[in-house]
Amino acid sequence: MKNIFFKKKNNLKINDILKCLNLEKSKNNFYVNDIRDLTEAGKNDVTFLHSKKYSNAAKNTKSKLIITNQKLKTIFSNKIYIIEVDNILLSVAKITELFYPSSLDENFDINATKVNKKKFSKINIGKNVLFGKNVKIGKSCSFGHNTIIESNVVIGDDCKIGNNVIIKNCIIGNKTVILDGAVIGKKGFGFFPNKDKNIRYPHIGSVIIGNNVEIGCNNTIDRGSLSNTIIGDGTFLDNQVHIAHNVKIGKNCIITGQVGFAGSSSIGNGVMIGGQAGISGHLNVGDNVQIAGGSGVIRDIPSNSKVMGYPAKDIRKFLKESK
Amino acid sequence: MKNIFFKKKNNLKINDILKCLNLEKSKNNFYVNDIRDLTEAGKNDVTFLHSKKYSNAAKNTKSKLIITNQKLKTIFSNKIYIIEVDNILLSVAKITELFYPSSLDENFDINATKVNKKKFSKINIGKNVLFGKNVKIGKSCSFGHNTIIESNVVIGDDCKIGNNVIIKNCIIGNKTVILDGAVIGKKGFGFFPNKDKNIRYPHIGSVIIGNNVEIGCNNTIDRGSLSNTIIGDGTFLDNQVHIAHNVKIGKNCIITGQVGFAGSSSIGNGVMIGGQAGISGHLNVGDNVQIAGGSGVIRDIPSNSKVMGYPAKDIRKFLKESK
Amino acid sequence: MKNIFFKKKNNLKINDILKCLNLEKSKNNFYVNDIRDLTEAGKNDVTFLHSKKYSNAAKNTKSKLIITNQKLKTIFSNKIYIIEVDNILLSVAKITELFYPSSLDENFDINATKVNKKKFSKINIGKNVLFGKNVKIGKSCSFGHNTIIESNVVIGDDCKIGNNVIIKNCIIGNKTVILDGAVIGKKGFGFFPNKDKNIRYPHIGSVIIGNNVEIGCNNTIDRGSLSNTIIGDGTFLDNQVHIAHNVKIGKNCIITGQVGFAGSSSIGNGVMIGGQAGISGHLNVGDNVQIAGGSGVIRDIPSNSKVMGYPAKDIRKFLKESK
Repeated sequence: MKNIFFKKKNNLKINDILKCLNLEKSKNNFYVNDIRDLTEAGKNDVTFLHSKKYSNAAKNTKSKLIITNQKLKTIFSNKIYIIEVDNILLSVAKITELFYPSSLDENFDINATKVNKKKFSKINIGKNVLFGKNVKIGKSCSFGHNTIIESNVVIGDDCKIGNNVIIKNCIIGNKTVILDGAVIGKKGFGFFPNKDKNIRYPHIGSVIIGNNVEIGCNNTIDRGSLSNTIIGDGTFLDNQVHIAHNVKIGKNCIITGQVGFAGSSSIGNGVMIGGQAGISGHLNVGDNVQIAGGSGVIRDIPSNSKVMGYPAKDIRKFLKESK
Repeated sequence: MKNIFFKKKNNLKINDILKCLNLEKSKNNFYVNDIRDLTEAGKNDVTFLHSKKYSNAAKNTKSKLIITNQKLKTIFSNKIYIIEVDNILLSVAKITELFYPSSLDENFDINATKVNKKKFSKINIGKNVLFGKNVKIGKSCSFGHNTIIESNVVIGDDCKIGNNVIIKNCIIGNKTVILDGAVIGKKGFGFFPNKDKNIRYPHIGSVIIGNNVEIGCNNTIDRGSLSNTIIGDGTFLDNQVHIAHNVKIGKNCIITGQVGFAGSSSIGNGVMIGGQAGISGHLNVGDNVQIAGGSGVIRDIPSNSKVMGYPAKDIRKFLKESK
Repeated sequence: MKNIFFKKKNNLKINDILKCLNLEKSKNNFYVNDIRDLTEAGKNDVTFLHSKKYSNAAKNTKSKLIITNQKLKTIFSNKIYIIEVDNILLSVAKITELFYPSSLDENFDINATKVNKKKFSKINIGKNVLFGKNVKIGKSCSFGHNTIIESNVVIGDDCKIGNNVIIKNCIIGNKTVILDGAVIGKKGFGFFPNKDKNIRYPHIGSVIIGNNVEIGCNNTIDRGSLSNTIIGDGTFLDNQVHIAHNVKIGKNCIITGQVGFAGSSSIGNGVMIGGQAGISGHLNVGDNVQIAGGSGVIRDIPSNSKVMGYPAKDIRKFLKESK
């Protein structure tokens, strides 16, 4: 999918990338189209492998240009152009910023203005509602008082947006409900820890929310870094839920109050999660999993499991042990 | 207590109810007044029993018309008219919607407008404050900037409401303080999980907040489904607390930051709860209980206990075991 | 540091203090300047010792006038004037209110008005932004829509404040970012539990935020009671973090989503804390400590430790035990 929200610099060549990473020039200075993750990269894009965990995706990527380190590069064939670096993610951040120079800016949308009622005639608008640039709204939607739709938002038909909601960089389906005080689409909380000064990771992804979804009051949902944050059709989130960058949640899930998801975790369909549970980063939770309230999930969970505890384990085992 | 906020359909008869549940007609087609829980139902109301846990309330109910299942119906005498169903709660939801057709709607209050200073002359009003329909305010109250009092709100004397607060379907006593960003009175997060599409539970209850209460910043307090969500006199809630539908909290409690209550739990008087603790649904916590921060309460707690851990147990036992 | 935000009553004498505590008059009725904690008190201030934990600070205090109890008073020399009481903290609260009669008031800032663009010409202002009294703003700052800067706020240069933010009683450095929906500077959640009616603790401290800090969406940061709540340079907070009164967080820390800090805890530099972790009150966490997500810290943590669990312990030990 093309990045429709962040402006990409075109005409970048391999030597621009190598220069940015303080590496030697290449003799053959070919064009590079974009930076994408392994599954989304096309043959003219640069991508990266930073963990063995993604070896399969690496073997199947269409990209011929990979940022990785000395140890991980061995899984690639000779036909792949390897950019060998020490700190893979820091290099990816630098190249992302090279392609998307504005990807680290994060400011309120000063262009947001009172809604033009001629342009948006088929929607119900509360008092003091603001819309930014590049906002597209379907039929029969409503927007509560003081709500701010900043730039880069596409909303389908029959959606109900509450009061005091803030949305940016987000695509929303049909019949979806966003409740009061939710904040959706700000950049994720991604850093390279660094003794003197922590370095921010660029975020050029979006938040993609399906049909018939409900987002609870005071929720916070961050946009993705290179990929997107996704919430599937029919999924309901209770109040005060936090969803970090790149998280993918499947269809028809029920996520109860104060649950938190760390970055890049992937949740299946029909998953039920009790209040205050936490899901660590970069995990896979299968379909129809039930996670008891207060649990801390720190390992992958296979489909159809019921887990509880911190760290979360089989619920019967946990309850037996905790007697 | 009569439901003062949600409009009830009158003139419903037993055969309307049976038809709604796809059951056979009754020969004697009598009027049914309302749907209420076991303790609140009067003799012309329909009520329901869905768990043995409530057998005592069932024996004492004034209602003569009970929705229950084959197993639970045995506790009732022959004088009671039993509506036997497989899925009790789903049937209750359908009948609630039959009595209260608007109980599943949830939209921002488009009727809220700038406060009429003639009508509300004895209160302090910030900038951009909106009031909806059916709002009654006592003497010497104040309402911070951008605050929205949607429809169906009764507030006593000497209350201080902060900035960016949203309140609907709520009754508040005297001398109560609601801090910035709190969202009070939206419908609870009640569902019937369903493989293809989760089904919403109707919420016709209110939030009832006593005197001298303090509600912290960014709190979320949902209204009840059939009964009310209640917070007793003199109780203080810190920031980012979440209270689900039907929860009852007693008097003079201290609830610290980020605590969460799942639906329908009941908390005694003088209870102190440390930060981030969670209380599961449908539990009873006695008077003067102390729950340490971070605890996960999954069983009833008798009065005067001090508990800690996940699951919460006697605090001395927990600290000994965790050494 | 002089209290620049709360108005102090001058000309108070020792007998005013003794009278307020229902104690006998002193023959020598000398002036008392202010009430401060042990480390900040000067020689004409009254201070207090309420726990052996602070004996060292007590020995080094410049104050000659100490509120304490019979047991703790033994550590002081004869040259110190001891005000002996049964309930130290309650007495401190009463004396604080005596010095700062408005310290228990907490109302929205009715004086906040639309920003005077002549006075604040070098900043970017969104729609519907309000500023209160005693607000000083540096160069090149921006303030998102609906944001309210209530009274007593000093902000440096190049700061970016998001939408729907509420700030009061706060000093902020340069290049700091405050994201949407954060609420900063309200009084802390400090009480004296009391069977009949819980008693509020006065809060005359501020929130002091350094340079290059980032405060996440919907965060809540309370001001200190007698001392200040402090967040050091280069520290980043993710969304939905709660920081109670008097907490001190060092430089260059990374605090992930939904973390909570209870009152008066002190966190070193370079500390990393995973999502939903909780830090109990009155603890010391050293430099470069790593606390895993979901952990509950209930004891001091020495520098350079990695901990996990509830209660938090050495991470290797925790993971081994939990297999």
